[in-house]
Amino acid sequence: MTRWATYYVAIFVAHLQGPMKVFATLLTVILVSSPCALALWPIPRSLKTGTTLVKLSSSFSIDVSVENAPQDLLNAVSRTKTQLFADKLGRLVVGRGANDTTALAQAPVLNKLTLSLSSGAASAKSIMQEATKDIASRSEGYSLTLPATGGTATISASSTLGLFRGLTTFEQLFYTTGDTVYVFQAPVTITNDSPAFPFRGFMLDTSRNFYPVADIKRTLDAMSMVKLSQFHWHVTDSQSFPLTIPGFPELSQKGAYSSAEIYSSDDVQDIVSYAGARGIDVLMEIDTPGHTSAISTSHPEHIACAAAAPWENFANEPPAGQLRLASSATANFTANLITAIAKTLPSTLFSTGGDELNTNCYTQDAQTQKDLKSSGKTLEQALNTFTQTTHGALKALDKTPVVWEEMALVHNVTLSKSTVVMVWISSQNAAAVAAKGLRLVHGPSDFFYLDCGAGEWIGNNPTANSWCDPFKSWQKAYTFNPLANLTSSQTSLVLGGEQLLWSEQAGSENIDSIVWPRAAASAEIFWTGAKLPDGTPLNVKSALTRLHDIRYRMVQRGIKAINLQPQWCALRDGQCNFDN
Amino acid sequence: MTRWATYYVAIFVAHLQGPMKVFATLLTVILVSSPCALALWPIPRSLKTGTTLVKLSSSFSIDVSVENAPQDLLNAVSRTKTQLFADKLGRLVVGRGANDTTALAQAPVLNKLTLSLSSGAASAKSIMQEATKDIASRSEGYSLTLPATGGTATISASSTLGLFRGLTTFEQLFYTTGDTVYVFQAPVTITNDSPAFPFRGFMLDTSRNFYPVADIKRTLDAMSMVKLSQFHWHVTDSQSFPLTIPGFPELSQKGAYSSAEIYSSDDVQDIVSYAGARGIDVLMEIDTPGHTSAISTSHPEHIACAAAAPWENFANEPPAGQLRLASSATANFTANLITAIAKTLPSTLFSTGGDELNTNCYTQDAQTQKDLKSSGKTLEQALNTFTQTTHGALKALDKTPVVWEEMALVHNVTLSKSTVVMVWISSQNAAAVAAKGLRLVHGPSDFFYLDCGAGEWIGNNPTANSWCDPFKSWQKAYTFNPLANLTSSQTSLVLGGEQLLWSEQAGSENIDSIVWPRAAASAEIFWTGAKLPDGTPLNVKSALTRLHDIRYRMVQRGIKAINLQPQWCALRDGQCNFDN
Repeated sequence: MTRWATYYVAIFVAHLQGPMKVFATLLTVILVSSPCALALWPIPRSLKTGTTLVKLSSSFSIDVSVENAPQDLLNAVSRTKTQLFADKLGRLVVGRGANDTTALAQAPVLNKLTLSLSSGAASAKSIMQEATKDIASRSEGYSLTLPATGGTATISASSTLGLFRGLTTFEQLFYTTGDTVYVFQAPVTITNDSPAFPFRGFMLDTSRNFYPVADIKRTLDAMSMVKLSQFHWHVTDSQSFPLTIPGFPELSQKGAYSSAEIYSSDDVQDIVSYAGARGIDVLMEIDTPGHTSAISTSHPEHIACAAAAPWENFANEPPAGQLRLASSATANFTANLITAIAKTLPSTLFSTGGDELNTNCYTQDAQTQKDLKSSGKTLEQALNTFTQTTHGALKALDKTPVVWEEMALVHNVTLSKSTVVMVWISSQNAAAVAAKGLRLVHGPSDFFYLDCGAGEWIGNNPTANSWCDPFKSWQKAYTFNPLANLTSSQTSLVLGGEQLLWSEQAGSENIDSIVWPRAAASAEIFWTGAKLPDGTPLNVKSALTRLHDIRYRMVQRGIKAINLQPQWCALRDGQCNFDN
Repeated sequence: MTRWATYYVAIFVAHLQGPMKVFATLLTVILVSSPCALALWPIPRSLKTGTTLVKLSSSFSIDVSVENAPQDLLNAVSRTKTQLFADKLGRLVVGRGANDTTALAQAPVLNKLTLSLSSGAASAKSIMQEATKDIASRSEGYSLTLPATGGTATISASSTLGLFRGLTTFEQLFYTTGDTVYVFQAPVTITNDSPAFPFRGFMLDTSRNFYPVADIKRTLDAMSMVKLSQFHWHVTDSQSFPLTIPGFPELSQKGAYSSAEIYSSDDVQDIVSYAGARGIDVLMEIDTPGHTSAISTSHPEHIACAAAAPWENFANEPPAGQLRLASSATANFTANLITAIAKTLPSTLFSTGGDELNTNCYTQDAQTQKDLKSSGKTLEQALNTFTQTTHGALKALDKTPVVWEEMALVHNVTLSKSTVVMVWISSQNAAAVAAKGLRLVHGPSDFFYLDCGAGEWIGNNPTANSWCDPFKSWQKAYTFNPLANLTSSQTSLVLGGEQLLWSEQAGSENIDSIVWPRAAASAEIFWTGAKLPDGTPLNVKSALTRLHDIRYRMVQRGIKAINLQPQWCALRDGQCNFDN
């Protein structure tokens, strides 16, 4: 209930007398307990709704008016049909929608949903093909109608990916009371809802602690519920190397925590397909040349300062260990392993990392010093050569390199204009990346790092907090402005952003609870953009109602998203706000 | 590996030459990868260990040399037998203990464990009877031997509760590699390990969000693993009233979130029995006279300022609502409902709460003002009368009242000398409670509040942090000193302490991950006391190895305790510390 609505109802009531006043007071109570906006997340960029209840026919069907419809679209349609009846989500109002029962008895019935492609359907690509296209050329828009008279709803789009986004929205329109599945704000009209930014991501670090494939799939389910488009898989790091790379089996055989903590090639393809079918592109990262200590378990010849002590002198965290970037053998080895894995992936993006390079590691490494001397290069020059080798390998596969911000801002590395730079150290650094004319993705630690604020994990400092305190609340993430400090000509360089889970203190046990619903915050920022469909700016006050809703829906689907408030508040829109 | 041990081995190696040096270097590596202390949590107050591997016989048996052994002891023995083979926990070293395989082939075999009561066994009480005795008269001590020659291990105690504590320790001695279950530091000798403090608790708020019985039982399992003795069940509050009270069914019928979110009388007895059989006493709290808004759903006549707006004027959090403490009808109603539930519980402790009373709520309540006027009492005098009524009801049941610190430090309430006061606002306030000669339990928000640091949950403040920032890390909790600022004559007033989970942002989804292994920190402080068995002070550096161990064991048992560090660190004792 918006504040002005309460206000006008109050005036209305104040001017009535007698029985009408009692009736109107009841009306006020009813209105106050009904949120005005449909609880969609991210909220469509255009949205019109009414006040009519429409119930779903028990023989509800979805017609796919797409010739030679791809299998992943048909599967998505099948999942939607199942989910509509399986969600069993009661409205987040007192009584959970039981008060709708009487009105539902007479409500019009929705029998059908039709999906159609606005462009010629003969050559329809799969959702996965559309989702893994070049980041600049994806088509995710869709339109949706659900009439107040029931009958037939429609979703139209110019791609199967757009149809899938529309199905995701459609599922979120429905609630259940008793055995009735229904929408309570028909008619619903959404016209060309398409994302403000194409890169809407979530990053998971599977090296510091391992996550079974089932955890990743469940995470992809949650991501697709909020229309995220990129799974940034930070798959390896210094702690473990859980990835099987064709031709390099020794990397995971010796570098994984155990044989049970490895992603096989089949696992990788399984994850990539599962993601693709849900509109998600997998951006894999093999972080180089730093964060590679685990490679020393199988290839000590390529790693400088492996597990050197004290680790503080050689790395930002234990264990130390970096690829010998000045060695052409090591550069070729790295390019080869990147090629071997990248060519198995459909994405056009691949990250070579590039963060937190420790100079002292190389100063102390006799082999690196010898390599530098023989080539006559400085360390920075050698880093550039190393990067050209790894990026060259990606370009040979027609892929676009992704790097952490240091490669653009700290080092003297030549980056092609297509390179995507991930800003992580501070949100303030985006402007400097843009000033270099490079495309960027926001992943700032001061807004989007999900691990912050859980105490120091290094073992022997009883009073320390995490380096990126405080905890990044969903509200903090939600107030991020993707275009802050950029000129209008630079805004097109912003591909989007992602929230990130580094796994020093995370694992299978808390992945759901540390990520959800928080990571939905950026999903809305980068889909909906700066303004709600009514033209008002995004704001945490109105977002909370809808965020509760998607959180409760995630829980219904087995994703252990945490409570944002006591349930008392979740059922009473606005009553747990500060009075300001 | 302690620092001095590494040091002496290094000197030893430095003086060797040739093949012996190679051998000794290998030895160093092996030693460095083996923690010296058994990974027991809490660590026994007396502990001697050796270096011999002893494996468990596949026909291992436990003999209970106790006449008429109570059923809950026999059940505990049965669980231990199952758990020894079910834990399948590998040692937290590189290789997870696979290197022990060769030595194990020749290792002596442990065939039997015998349990005996040192006092006459004829009248053995059940574990539950012992665990629910008056807090000052419980007997939890035990002795344990496990010979390096295998054969028979022993646990002796003067109560079944002590035997149960011994079984808990015994289970933690064992690791698994392949199909072999074994202890690696026999002989083990523990002589009269008994707790420094009897009250070692964990508090759960089941009102702000609801937890199914299965969550509570799993929490009790985890609590018993670290020898916690008190489950403080903050069962009701302003948000919901999930407790069925005999004779007052309307309280939960109308005050619970839903009919599915109620603890029935059978559930309560189930929880109390489950806890008792695991050495845990259930201290139930019905918070009064504040934090009672939910009672207004069934008894509006007893509640002042129910859900009054703006809530900030009437309560510390929404919704407002407090028992009309100046009304004798309300006082009697409250005493009656406390009697009705307390008499179904075996514990001698029961909490009437008493925190965060809002004066303005009563100033604005016409009924309370009328009641005060007619009785001629001040609000403080009326509070005292109210408290005498509720505490009188408890004393009539031979139970001891427990209150939050405000009742002792803020209000003019007469408290009997047996009253137990819970210190929560600040650890600094313990001294003031002790100065009044009252017994106390530590639950300070600046050390033990598990909810702190997760952002503001009130809805419309994007930048706010939680009121009790920062996050209370396990390290912070572990550095708590129960006797700080107390005179030696006051130390006997300290019954112990507890870590607490308030559930504004918690629920079934994150109970395990937000509580464990953090809540094990205070379990050791209050069992082991200030010093480790070797006489050195408790310290986070040596604790971490053992805390990892109990965390990994919890995970094996289905408790989703979170990672404290990357697994790389968990397997390499001390290598992820700061070099200081």
